[in-house]
Amino acid sequence: MQSMPLVAIVTALALIEFMTFAALVGYARGKYKVAAPATTGDPVFERHFRVHYNTLEQWIVFLPSLWLFAFFVNPTWGAGLGAVVVVARIPYAIGYIRDPKKREFGSILGTLALLPLVFGSLIGAIRAL
Amino acid sequence: MQSMPLVAIVTALALIEFMTFAALVGYARGKYKVAAPATTGDPVFERHFRVHYNTLEQWIVFLPSLWLFAFFVNPTWGAGLGAVVVVARIPYAIGYIRDPKKREFGSILGTLALLPLVFGSLIGAIRAL
Amino acid sequence: MQSMPLVAIVTALALIEFMTFAALVGYARGKYKVAAPATTGDPVFERHFRVHYNTLEQWIVFLPSLWLFAFFVNPTWGAGLGAVVVVARIPYAIGYIRDPKKREFGSILGTLALLPLVFGSLIGAIRAL
Repeated sequence: MQSMPLVAIVTALALIEFMTFAALVGYARGKYKVAAPATTGDPVFERHFRVHYNTLEQWIVFLPSLWLFAFFVNPTWGAGLGAVVVVARIPYAIGYIRDPKKREFGSILGTLALLPLVFGSLIGAIRAL
Repeated sequence: MQSMPLVAIVTALALIEFMTFAALVGYARGKYKVAAPATTGDPVFERHFRVHYNTLEQWIVFLPSLWLFAFFVNPTWGAGLGAVVVVARIPYAIGYIRDPKKREFGSILGTLALLPLVFGSLIGAIRAL
Repeated sequence: MQSMPLVAIVTALALIEFMTFAALVGYARGKYKVAAPATTGDPVFERHFRVHYNTLEQWIVFLPSLWLFAFFVNPTWGAGLGAVVVVARIPYAIGYIRDPKKREFGSILGTLALLPLVFGSLIGAIRAL
């Protein structure tokens, strides 16, 4: 279990990355003049907003699967795959804000690291029965 | 604690169900011609999108309460109630996509299993003080 | 680890608060005549909706950081900071529904309690390596 702090570090970095995306939405609200509670009205603002919310969608899967994988499969491998998920969100976000079509590289890379976390967790838990 | 792998299996299945709803949104983007970052524009697309996001809203409550209940009340009962929550999302999603009014059966069934997880967790934690 | 039940109680209260915001959105759907799947159309409905979703955004950061802080730093301090985050959402919600500009006090108070949870978790996990 000596790698559990690594899993916690990856988790904390994922949370900080997510808060950064939230801050970028706040910045884009001012720059593109989209006052709360609106979340539409300017296409570039909407890209910032979708980066934030698509990451929310992914984190609700990523964070539980990271910890299930760490406990039921292997914490070192979990931390490694998790680090790829977190890092892949950087080109995803930069790409999406430039052009929605350019989100694909980061999106695919993140998904390739996420899928083994999710299905590995399921298999690891079944084997622990 | 022998039932903890069951709780992990229910969690992993909940994550896979959520990823399936995400994939259905991606499919509906193509079919109903709603290009990212837009999330509105076609009523049937919007139903797919709401299934995904309403599940996101429920999972942020469901996943923590499932594990609190498992630790502070009973893991076997937690896994059982959790399985009902996960299964109830299937008629919810099918119903909502057909007609927003038809989401009620799955929605009520899921909530009936979720409420004891949430309030059971609170009571279990208070009793553990 | 005797304070872990306190952390669980704060978590359960955060989930119940979130479900209350969800119920307020349902109530506002009826009052302001915004039928599902729409999430826009009336500015006061939209404020209810944003209270719910902004809390979703914060909970995906708050709940993991609360537990990381409890394990890697201190559970009593974690529960205390977490209680501030949960309580701060009440003036946030009341303020936002009255006037989006009035969400600031609750928003800032909650963030002031959330940031030490997040960065404390990161530092605590690094020190546990």
